[in-house]
Amino acid sequence: MTTTLISGGTVVGATGRGAADVLVDGERIVAVLEPGSTLLGAELAGSVDRVIDASGKYVIPGGIDAHTHMQLPFGGTEASDTFETGTRAAAHGGTTTIIDFAVQRYGERVEDGLAAWHEKAAGECAIDYGFHQIVGGVDEASLQAMRKLPDEGITSFKLFMAYPGVFYSDDAQVLRAMQVSRETGMLTMMHAENGPAIDVLAEQLAEQGKTDPYFHGVARAWEMEEEATHRAIMLAKLTGAPLYVVHVSAKQAVAQLAWARDHGQHVFGETCPQYLYLSLEEQLGASSEQWGAFEGAKWVCSTPLRSREERHQDAMWQALRTNDLQMVSTDHCPFCMKDQKELGLGDFRKIPNGIGSVEHRMDLMYQGVVTGELTLERWVELTSTTPARMFGLAGRKGAIQPGADADLVVYDPNGRTTIGMPVDADGKPTGRTHHMNMDHSAWEGFEVDGHVDVVLSRGKVVVEGDEYLGRKGDGRYLKRGLSSYLS
Amino acid sequence: MTTTLISGGTVVGATGRGAADVLVDGERIVAVLEPGSTLLGAELAGSVDRVIDASGKYVIPGGIDAHTHMQLPFGGTEASDTFETGTRAAAHGGTTTIIDFAVQRYGERVEDGLAAWHEKAAGECAIDYGFHQIVGGVDEASLQAMRKLPDEGITSFKLFMAYPGVFYSDDAQVLRAMQVSRETGMLTMMHAENGPAIDVLAEQLAEQGKTDPYFHGVARAWEMEEEATHRAIMLAKLTGAPLYVVHVSAKQAVAQLAWARDHGQHVFGETCPQYLYLSLEEQLGASSEQWGAFEGAKWVCSTPLRSREERHQDAMWQALRTNDLQMVSTDHCPFCMKDQKELGLGDFRKIPNGIGSVEHRMDLMYQGVVTGELTLERWVELTSTTPARMFGLAGRKGAIQPGADADLVVYDPNGRTTIGMPVDADGKPTGRTHHMNMDHSAWEGFEVDGHVDVVLSRGKVVVEGDEYLGRKGDGRYLKRGLSSYLS
Amino acid sequence: MTTTLISGGTVVGATGRGAADVLVDGERIVAVLEPGSTLLGAELAGSVDRVIDASGKYVIPGGIDAHTHMQLPFGGTEASDTFETGTRAAAHGGTTTIIDFAVQRYGERVEDGLAAWHEKAAGECAIDYGFHQIVGGVDEASLQAMRKLPDEGITSFKLFMAYPGVFYSDDAQVLRAMQVSRETGMLTMMHAENGPAIDVLAEQLAEQGKTDPYFHGVARAWEMEEEATHRAIMLAKLTGAPLYVVHVSAKQAVAQLAWARDHGQHVFGETCPQYLYLSLEEQLGASSEQWGAFEGAKWVCSTPLRSREERHQDAMWQALRTNDLQMVSTDHCPFCMKDQKELGLGDFRKIPNGIGSVEHRMDLMYQGVVTGELTLERWVELTSTTPARMFGLAGRKGAIQPGADADLVVYDPNGRTTIGMPVDADGKPTGRTHHMNMDHSAWEGFEVDGHVDVVLSRGKVVVEGDEYLGRKGDGRYLKRGLSSYLS
Amino acid sequence: MTTTLISGGTVVGATGRGAADVLVDGERIVAVLEPGSTLLGAELAGSVDRVIDASGKYVIPGGIDAHTHMQLPFGGTEASDTFETGTRAAAHGGTTTIIDFAVQRYGERVEDGLAAWHEKAAGECAIDYGFHQIVGGVDEASLQAMRKLPDEGITSFKLFMAYPGVFYSDDAQVLRAMQVSRETGMLTMMHAENGPAIDVLAEQLAEQGKTDPYFHGVARAWEMEEEATHRAIMLAKLTGAPLYVVHVSAKQAVAQLAWARDHGQHVFGETCPQYLYLSLEEQLGASSEQWGAFEGAKWVCSTPLRSREERHQDAMWQALRTNDLQMVSTDHCPFCMKDQKELGLGDFRKIPNGIGSVEHRMDLMYQGVVTGELTLERWVELTSTTPARMFGLAGRKGAIQPGADADLVVYDPNGRTTIGMPVDADGKPTGRTHHMNMDHSAWEGFEVDGHVDVVLSRGKVVVEGDEYLGRKGDGRYLKRGLSSYLS
Repeated sequence: MTTTLISGGTVVGATGRGAADVLVDGERIVAVLEPGSTLLGAELAGSVDRVIDASGKYVIPGGIDAHTHMQLPFGGTEASDTFETGTRAAAHGGTTTIIDFAVQRYGERVEDGLAAWHEKAAGECAIDYGFHQIVGGVDEASLQAMRKLPDEGITSFKLFMAYPGVFYSDDAQVLRAMQVSRETGMLTMMHAENGPAIDVLAEQLAEQGKTDPYFHGVARAWEMEEEATHRAIMLAKLTGAPLYVVHVSAKQAVAQLAWARDHGQHVFGETCPQYLYLSLEEQLGASSEQWGAFEGAKWVCSTPLRSREERHQDAMWQALRTNDLQMVSTDHCPFCMKDQKELGLGDFRKIPNGIGSVEHRMDLMYQGVVTGELTLERWVELTSTTPARMFGLAGRKGAIQPGADADLVVYDPNGRTTIGMPVDADGKPTGRTHHMNMDHSAWEGFEVDGHVDVVLSRGKVVVEGDEYLGRKGDGRYLKRGLSSYLS
Repeated sequence: MTTTLISGGTVVGATGRGAADVLVDGERIVAVLEPGSTLLGAELAGSVDRVIDASGKYVIPGGIDAHTHMQLPFGGTEASDTFETGTRAAAHGGTTTIIDFAVQRYGERVEDGLAAWHEKAAGECAIDYGFHQIVGGVDEASLQAMRKLPDEGITSFKLFMAYPGVFYSDDAQVLRAMQVSRETGMLTMMHAENGPAIDVLAEQLAEQGKTDPYFHGVARAWEMEEEATHRAIMLAKLTGAPLYVVHVSAKQAVAQLAWARDHGQHVFGETCPQYLYLSLEEQLGASSEQWGAFEGAKWVCSTPLRSREERHQDAMWQALRTNDLQMVSTDHCPFCMKDQKELGLGDFRKIPNGIGSVEHRMDLMYQGVVTGELTLERWVELTSTTPARMFGLAGRKGAIQPGADADLVVYDPNGRTTIGMPVDADGKPTGRTHHMNMDHSAWEGFEVDGHVDVVLSRGKVVVEGDEYLGRKGDGRYLKRGLSSYLS
Repeated sequence: MTTTLISGGTVVGATGRGAADVLVDGERIVAVLEPGSTLLGAELAGSVDRVIDASGKYVIPGGIDAHTHMQLPFGGTEASDTFETGTRAAAHGGTTTIIDFAVQRYGERVEDGLAAWHEKAAGECAIDYGFHQIVGGVDEASLQAMRKLPDEGITSFKLFMAYPGVFYSDDAQVLRAMQVSRETGMLTMMHAENGPAIDVLAEQLAEQGKTDPYFHGVARAWEMEEEATHRAIMLAKLTGAPLYVVHVSAKQAVAQLAWARDHGQHVFGETCPQYLYLSLEEQLGASSEQWGAFEGAKWVCSTPLRSREERHQDAMWQALRTNDLQMVSTDHCPFCMKDQKELGLGDFRKIPNGIGSVEHRMDLMYQGVVTGELTLERWVELTSTTPARMFGLAGRKGAIQPGADADLVVYDPNGRTTIGMPVDADGKPTGRTHHMNMDHSAWEGFEVDGHVDVVLSRGKVVVEGDEYLGRKGDGRYLKRGLSSYLS
Repeated sequence: MTTTLISGGTVVGATGRGAADVLVDGERIVAVLEPGSTLLGAELAGSVDRVIDASGKYVIPGGIDAHTHMQLPFGGTEASDTFETGTRAAAHGGTTTIIDFAVQRYGERVEDGLAAWHEKAAGECAIDYGFHQIVGGVDEASLQAMRKLPDEGITSFKLFMAYPGVFYSDDAQVLRAMQVSRETGMLTMMHAENGPAIDVLAEQLAEQGKTDPYFHGVARAWEMEEEATHRAIMLAKLTGAPLYVVHVSAKQAVAQLAWARDHGQHVFGETCPQYLYLSLEEQLGASSEQWGAFEGAKWVCSTPLRSREERHQDAMWQALRTNDLQMVSTDHCPFCMKDQKELGLGDFRKIPNGIGSVEHRMDLMYQGVVTGELTLERWVELTSTTPARMFGLAGRKGAIQPGADADLVVYDPNGRTTIGMPVDADGKPTGRTHHMNMDHSAWEGFEVDGHVDVVLSRGKVVVEGDEYLGRKGDGRYLKRGLSSYLS
């Protein structure tokens, strides 16, 4: 087994930081040491196989992105990242674990859906991965199957209050599934938007000829996110189920979560980088020579971008500080403009929903540290420590401690990361471009402070500088335990 | 320098736990290690001076009690614990740091008050100690003096909205002091009760012959805590000062804190064990052969005990879970019944206010883990990690990490602690009794799971079993930095 | 035309009272006069056809019950009061106007439903009547038909979020109907309970053998009323529709209404006498020789009775005072125990939902004046003045003013009313029993202060003492205007 | 005695309107009649002394301004309207009752303060008047005196949380006075601003050279109004006193009132026209040739004008609609620029606080009907009916009903009122200018729809067109009863 010493850096955890060396033996962390301790560390550098110099840098637990959709079939096409390309991109960005969603659709067996996702991922991933289970057709059979998921290492399932005819569960179905959540301790994840009402608004807009991508956001009004969030909370209250609301974007939805928590409910929420930085106004204003106003399709996702004027973004940052939101995931669901997004030319309802960010989450969130929105510790907590605790990976992932998997990132606060496809003075592409399988970036033009220098996945250096050193199949399936954030 | 290895235990931090050994070199932690790692740990046991077996036990950072009053002059007497007796009792209970309050009174110089407290504490303490500054007379001179406190390692000051004629600041004074808080980054600590109104109620009760200790709690109605909390929040909002409300006991006051935090203010709060376990009803019912209804004087503290019927205690536990309250301190302010509490015989207004708990905090809070109110991690966070971050000791105290002071507790979850003065079948005192300088216990009869087995203060074993191994003067003054919980 | 002088009483309106005579000429009020005015009134007594002595009594506008269901088909049977029996009972109780619900069901035409109800009522009623329109099947045809309803004098329609498969509208349908509400100014009335979720709970209870009437209330948990109320509010906010929530019974639903109003929405609510006086605990405890625990079926209504312990009743009274609820209606929907309620023997789900109170509303609400819950003026406002303003009858009904219909009640505050079937010492029925077509009373045993002495409907004395003097067909259909409470 | 018939108009009350004639006999209303009733009204026109044609106009109860300060000594000068000039101006504006404030200052006897005000007013007033009692020095003697006020017809007293050293009561004093309020049923009126804190801010601004009138509003931050409002609410809750907050201007203060009412407290509030129409931004921008930036002194009042940008005005209108505020008064407290306001040249703290509006309240509020903010009925309720009920004048004032005082206004909705000193094309003053004793208008340039055509005070026509027909001493002192709005 290889031994590695990450030396001279500042180790950062969710509640503190300090100068320390990290010693890795094989796949796991075996020690966190005072640098240059005469007792132990002094000769260590000579005896380990490899020393990584982290002077002037942060050493953090690898990122955990608890919300990705590789190869997700959606709207007649499929998310453009395979497990191979998507996890490799994640690794480049300092993320060493993803939790993707296995899908059961109405009429299918849960077991088959899960098996299909295992097949897609097995042997393909650059980093470790787990699954949540989407249950798109709650009935007796699927409820029965859900009860067995914890034995498979799947301890959370997701329901949709949106997308009637596709993933939608009505309230009777939500209630039944939440009863299983209560019974088993599994976490109920919820896409909280009132789909039936939204579809009416979307149809009416389309009938009025309002077909540009911008109207996607108009149809998915914040009232419909707030409403569904409240409904999910009350159904959770009634059943006693723990609830986790995905991709929260409206400040009013945050207020509902805060209200529930102030009343003692086990209710949690994540937001995503797009809801912190991007806005509906920008989508409205978007235009390009190639696509015209359809350029806005790049930012079609659900929940949608919200109005900057109404200060939703500010509210998201604040909620991340006060723990009314506990995590930041990406909802990575990439589609190319060509052949995919363009399915919705002339009708925003046909644009595949999704933004690709799995590669950029750690950098984009670090920018919040730079601007003073977050502490350094909170950055680590939101992107790694809490995801591990929330989704049953504590002890293995999300913290730098002996016995944990050596998923580590050396992060350079003085580095700089340019997202998208930067060009030189002559317009030639230059430097790093993203590694996601997308023909564009939702983040084109973002230049942020900080840089992922080295990434270790279970002790193996998989990224160094901008070079990928791992290979397909490095990543293993993670059987997850029950959430330890709850109790 | 002595080296010590704490071996075989479960190291618990604010966001996780794991099997790990802790290596101490002199006063500091130098490594956290995988137990039995062939790479490092195997031969370590032989080479260190001392090995402490923590098998089956928790290894936690030493407790930090951020609210104590040793030797505080109050009501014509003085708190009965000296810095010597009080800190020794704290050590017995697994607390390795206290932050006490230096006092400036109206007409005195802040510098003189601080100097007096340094004199009381220097060379007396069993464990490390810091000071907050009570400013009981805000005027131009004291405002000027406050600006210099951070250089002295004092980064928080406390004001009183109660006790007119003693410590009371009116709103004009609070405002001016908070402006200094905003300017310097010092934390404003607040005793939030409407003193002028309470004093009227107390006077009226006394005039009606309602003089038993119970009426202390009647006079200090929750409305007056809620009100003052809101007032402090709004003055903090106006000035931009960070605010920390001490000894929160009313659920309605918690609601005010939650409201402020939901609106993005930097507002924090602590509660104390007495508000989690004891109630006004019990105080009303208290009676003894010796003292009659005056027995209730043992639980006269301010803010007072609240009604169990009104479910304040439940609300406190909930707030500790949801982080609407961030910390648990004791407000340790002990008075004997004899000669002290009895000053208030016949007039509850003359009973010195205070309960002694510095020795029991860690045990009493661990009981919350046993009953399922808190996670093990949250126990550590509330009693140690957050106090360190909140009050400028992060990196040194509150976490088990290389470079930190070796303030460590081996805690036995299978042990059992009997508080007070247990007697055997013949009525003879037996086993451990408390070490605080009090002739009674506010916690008589409490038997709780868990036991403090070993306590290290900066690397030195000061308590083992129930035996005190340290000596007067072990503890040093801590110059604290600004809060890192804020930013 | 007959002229009548109601003389010597205290005329009570929504915002004041005063000694005054009321002069009626034919069907309308022509003057409100100072008693014994030398200028006008002195010789008036001699010149009018009839003088009614109201000395020591209140003269109030006749009650308006805006929520009744005469002859409603429900659960395989039909509400037991015809328009004839129900309106006669109403007259006995001081109610001179009802607004009943015409019903359109899924698959039927709105026009046909309305025509059917006109046919049921025409020529049958003792007092004036109007209709709301229940729309149980929102589709293009019914939306189109709804737009024409204002021309028919129907300016409010009701949707159901409960009763899937019967009256239920999903959120898409609610949204579309509310858009018509916004467009036309019609008021959206909502039965706000989450039917799909409730039906799951009810089914599970039944499967567990919990089939007694009490479980009706367990299944219809307050969370499901609160949730649906919030959902209706947000859909109303999104569309701009004015909203009126019927039969509010949960304090948490009231909190939602208050929240919406505090945020400026046009949201209104009614409660019913049963939610002010009766409770779930009493239903649980109900038992009789004849029916055993099925006795509780008498109080099966939806929304259900709520827990007294949880203090919903107190919250309803308070909301009536603070105008968070604006009106009290009965939701009169009577079923006999024999042949009707007993359909649900062995399965509470089959018990026809409803309580009959149309005769008792004025008396039951006056009891709130006696106990100090309401002012005398508020009693009139809640039962008459606001219903008239809310539902487009202002100027004609709900106030004692020249030009208004002479719908008047002489109410004796010193009288006493015994509801149900009082018996004498020998067990013989004695005195007044109710006039509703029911074989029991939900109010058996209620004895209240106050008594309806005389009732005039459009100038005609229809009730005097306990005697009915009118006849079938006295009542006319009221074409209502848009709500004037809104603007 | 003179008899008058107001004929052909639309009589408007708080909850309805209708075509009706009003018959006045001497000082009182004796009948409200159907116009042209063959039974009564037909020959009436011939038999009465005077017929006032109100065709096409509204007939409303005379306005009641419950908050005026005639001849108030303040800041070294005295409010510029005497009872004579002020009440005459009120009459011009359709206000037929004022409730002014008798003043007791620290060190004075309440009885003497009251006697002094009786002396100022007796024989001077154009319209009826009552008094509230300002208690500026709560001590045993004044508490005792307060208990006797109801016998004098004074059933409300006002305290100040602002103006330390002048009118200020500390919380102990407020508590004691509220206990008397609870005991006697008198209404506690509160000037809710945190004076001690505001004075610090004002002093600091002045020291920084920020001395323009605008800084008056900066110093009196909304946080200090919100805070004091909450404090008053909690003290009222503790004592059980009914509370009425005067001149509410901050939306956050309204939120506090709404919160208290939603929790069942008897808490009420008024706002004033200036908080509905004028803003801090306009005060900042104000400038004139004569006064420069000191022009802003015209709008120096306390509470101050609030920011339009922050949408306080919108919140006030909304609160008037939802009854979170129940009344509109003027806080009429006029000072001339010359010799009075100019005392504060160079130091905003010395500008006498106050705006004169007693003449314009009815017109300014009618403008809310024109713009759709209020219904016609709500206009009457806010300006007349509720003031009468709130302050113990129900039955005599505030409603058009037999037996009530004939205080009546014929209001022409098609008229137009130009406030201030309109000039013609040549700059010559033209048309109506105000009748208040002020050398400027805070409302200069306001042109509003509607016009006060005729005003009757107890049956006597005192204003017709713009002509004053009454005389000094017409108005009588009103002994008020306890509030009937409460119970």
